[in-house]
Amino acid sequence: MPSHVAILGPGLLGGSLALALKACTGVAVAVWARREAAVEEEKGRCCADLVSTDAREVVADADTVVFATPIGAMPGLATEIAPHVRSAALVTDVGSVKAPVCSELAPIFHAHANFVGSHPMAGSERSGIKAANADLFRGATCIVTPAEDTSAAAVESATSLWRSVGGVVKILSPEDHDRVVAWISHLPHLLAACLVQSVADSQAQAFDFCGPGFRDTTRVAGGPPDMWTEILSENRAAVRGAVDGLIEKLSNVSTLLASAQPLERDAAMKKFLTEAKAQREGLRFPKNLSDA
Amino acid sequence: MPSHVAILGPGLLGGSLALALKACTGVAVAVWARREAAVEEEKGRCCADLVSTDAREVVADADTVVFATPIGAMPGLATEIAPHVRSAALVTDVGSVKAPVCSELAPIFHAHANFVGSHPMAGSERSGIKAANADLFRGATCIVTPAEDTSAAAVESATSLWRSVGGVVKILSPEDHDRVVAWISHLPHLLAACLVQSVADSQAQAFDFCGPGFRDTTRVAGGPPDMWTEILSENRAAVRGAVDGLIEKLSNVSTLLASAQPLERDAAMKKFLTEAKAQREGLRFPKNLSDA
Repeated sequence: MPSHVAILGPGLLGGSLALALKACTGVAVAVWARREAAVEEEKGRCCADLVSTDAREVVADADTVVFATPIGAMPGLATEIAPHVRSAALVTDVGSVKAPVCSELAPIFHAHANFVGSHPMAGSERSGIKAANADLFRGATCIVTPAEDTSAAAVESATSLWRSVGGVVKILSPEDHDRVVAWISHLPHLLAACLVQSVADSQAQAFDFCGPGFRDTTRVAGGPPDMWTEILSENRAAVRGAVDGLIEKLSNVSTLLASAQPLERDAAMKKFLTEAKAQREGLRFPKNLSDA
Repeated sequence: MPSHVAILGPGLLGGSLALALKACTGVAVAVWARREAAVEEEKGRCCADLVSTDAREVVADADTVVFATPIGAMPGLATEIAPHVRSAALVTDVGSVKAPVCSELAPIFHAHANFVGSHPMAGSERSGIKAANADLFRGATCIVTPAEDTSAAAVESATSLWRSVGGVVKILSPEDHDRVVAWISHLPHLLAACLVQSVADSQAQAFDFCGPGFRDTTRVAGGPPDMWTEILSENRAAVRGAVDGLIEKLSNVSTLLASAQPLERDAAMKKFLTEAKAQREGLRFPKNLSDA
């Protein structure tokens, strides 16, 4: 269990982690925010023991440091705080793409602390401190992503951190993580955006008739564009592979619909839908209290 | 308001309509089921005044007749009951595709009754009498689809029927209806199935990491394959157009991800995601009590 956690960035994930740590464990929590206004807002939530724009002050006493900023802001901040992080402290992050983050941050902390990447899969389309809640990680899958040279101690500490706020920890290499999330997170996001845009282009009248199916299929398209642009850019090779794989499936379906042989066509379509239904029903989703 | 409603087919929609009519309005309800076992099951729900495998008996006293069978079973059953339907009765159906249904059923009832198609947009991936509930149509969009020669009386009666169980009625021609649902219902269904199948083919390991986003994006893939095969077959021209439109959008995204110019690439991606987010947030979904 951590006893003093520094959280860098007071957004949805950082803010929720601060609330969760205070609510569940009572450990000391210090939060860094870039802007004074964010410091005041975070103080208004009354959960952290220290909130400051001075990152060095925030990390000084921490046995655990968590980057919860946009991915692009992490290396600069890491370089600034590295000399001030306690020796043997755990350093981790909550970025949605892991190979680029881990390969940039691990060397920066190599001489000072133990770095390992994390990806708590929580948050969906909401963002900002206002959406933060203490139950965000309860039941959520939290992927910890050791590289080949990551210490076992770092993996253990990160596992302990996420378990302390109710997360279900799984382990993947940074590269495997990025391939997995390309398919189950990044592709669905692009798909939701493409579906909404296609309807807008081709049949905008249809928006007046949307029901629960369209609502759920497109929900993730409401996510923050800045964050998602960064995610898709960082993971673009894997995401492109996933997009192209889906295009191939859709093209097969289009060809099938064009078939002039109704019996064969319907038999093949039914087989396709039956398999998809069975695969869908075989999935086990984490029961996340904050996302009922 | 109807005073005596005959419902042909005791599945999710027919069973829910029977429950809703009894709960909300107290009108007499008669239900036809093809199989004796379904008759017994429907009687177990204790809501209809008459349940029988004899369609003629079920429609004999009805001022409103609702087809809630699979689309393929409607014409045969219509021919059987048409001579026994009360003069000037409303005849409608709940099929998910309207042009083929309306063009087949309207002539059958031309001399006997007033036919107009309906599509209550409720039900999603559940099916069968066990999933039936009296609130299924409460707040749901119910599309009534008059053809050029449909009587105003039929439209009024169908509107009254769906409003009596809490539906929000909208009017579209059968052809416009089919184009609209191709984009907002049939395409999302195929997309959910294609997404699940793509992951299964290319990155099955990823299924262990699915979160709320993947859960919601693929929810409709759990729908009944028999029903969906029939829907996609009946509406295949419009569905194919929608699938091809989406493939084009996804291809543009794939090309964008492959761009070697990071600034232009990220600016274009952010614009695309920002537009999709705004379009998604502009949508107003019906508040359907049964689908919270």
